[in-house]
Amino acid sequence: MRCGVFDSGIGGLTVTAHLLNAGFFEEIIYYGDTARVPYGNRNESTIIRYGLEGLEFLKNFNIDFLVVACNSVSAVALSELQREAPFPVVGVIEAGVRGVLTLSKDSPLLLIGTRATIGSKAYQKRLNQIGFKRVIAVPTPLFVPLVEEGIWDGKIVEEVFKLYFGKLPRQEIGGIILGCTHYPFLAPPIARYFPSARLVHSGEEIVRLLRDKFYLKPKYRTKLQIYASDNVEQVREMATRWLSHLSS
Amino acid sequence: MRCGVFDSGIGGLTVTAHLLNAGFFEEIIYYGDTARVPYGNRNESTIIRYGLEGLEFLKNFNIDFLVVACNSVSAVALSELQREAPFPVVGVIEAGVRGVLTLSKDSPLLLIGTRATIGSKAYQKRLNQIGFKRVIAVPTPLFVPLVEEGIWDGKIVEEVFKLYFGKLPRQEIGGIILGCTHYPFLAPPIARYFPSARLVHSGEEIVRLLRDKFYLKPKYRTKLQIYASDNVEQVREMATRWLSHLSS
Repeated sequence: MRCGVFDSGIGGLTVTAHLLNAGFFEEIIYYGDTARVPYGNRNESTIIRYGLEGLEFLKNFNIDFLVVACNSVSAVALSELQREAPFPVVGVIEAGVRGVLTLSKDSPLLLIGTRATIGSKAYQKRLNQIGFKRVIAVPTPLFVPLVEEGIWDGKIVEEVFKLYFGKLPRQEIGGIILGCTHYPFLAPPIARYFPSARLVHSGEEIVRLLRDKFYLKPKYRTKLQIYASDNVEQVREMATRWLSHLSS
Repeated sequence: MRCGVFDSGIGGLTVTAHLLNAGFFEEIIYYGDTARVPYGNRNESTIIRYGLEGLEFLKNFNIDFLVVACNSVSAVALSELQREAPFPVVGVIEAGVRGVLTLSKDSPLLLIGTRATIGSKAYQKRLNQIGFKRVIAVPTPLFVPLVEEGIWDGKIVEEVFKLYFGKLPRQEIGGIILGCTHYPFLAPPIARYFPSARLVHSGEEIVRLLRDKFYLKPKYRTKLQIYASDNVEQVREMATRWLSHLSS
């Protein structure tokens, strides 16, 4: 069993880390479209085209599943990919929304993501459909550059939290959807800032979704291949650094 | 007289603001390749190809000059563009280096830019050639997202300065090259932090270069056309906001 992971860049490596731990697959083929990252601000038709091109590339590897780790592609292109692919395609938004199903609908839910993800309302629509009426959606665009700079805690992070979260009812928030694959690196300070909240990670939820919906079981010591459309060396170096941090 | 301004994204608008004020041109045609921004981390051959494609696009407008506002393209592709273009092509690196010619070579010079610009050593090589031996080059990758978030001063900026500049001899720095077109928005807090330094802006220096080298004179109330390869509405909106701030 082989799984493709598609992302616009390197963020999907956090999802990949969870898939590696899960042991569902003999091999994971990761493809980051680093030549055209970030997708977030592109037009919808552009994102769909890029998503379909990513699918085409990963089809070459005889994959049995495709995980779309990119929030932008999951938000606007998932049904197109599912129509084109001869195998199941799962996305991080569907997975993230499943992650809050067990939470109380009385407490407000915080959704954070890039400006594009929040603006697409993809999460909010699905959350409203399943009965969450109090969804506080906050775009937190500085989080991606902070994570990529290796600033995962400390004073700058605290000041940025004040900027984005300063006016929120921090004791009341019951759950937080980390609506961007970069954000798990900031999970420790976020958890401290919102002491009553359950944090929902895309990676954990993708693993749960694959297990519950497709009955996948831990069987393999998974091999990983990494491809990128540009800047391959830097992606592999980042992968080594991130994956060793995430699996520690 | 018409001038094309090419950038990978919207940063070149700060250069455009200075060109609009200068009044050298009847019309400026700005083209931001927002479908493929940022260029900084792309391979050199990719950046050259993108630069040549930008030139091709702007040739359609019968321009008499091309200003390359993108540091990455100026660093690696300027000679290719100059060879291909039937009109003069000037870049921000050449301009920025001219901006320090009058400064004392005894004081250390601070160069800040994206990781890609600093890593390319394009500025450093030229600065060494003209006799600056003490060039402190600091990549400041958080500055672009801060500027794009509209965070141009205040506590977050102070904390980020401590991170990047905390160990520098701040009283001694004689000049600072703002090696990224986004950075002029942060000029006021940078000037406060380094009280003895002269700040060198690409936009000001491009205007000076055009005046000194091509004898251009203020003659026009310049019209501006803006094109972008993606996300055109957002670029125009940002342009309105930025240009009104920069001309105020």
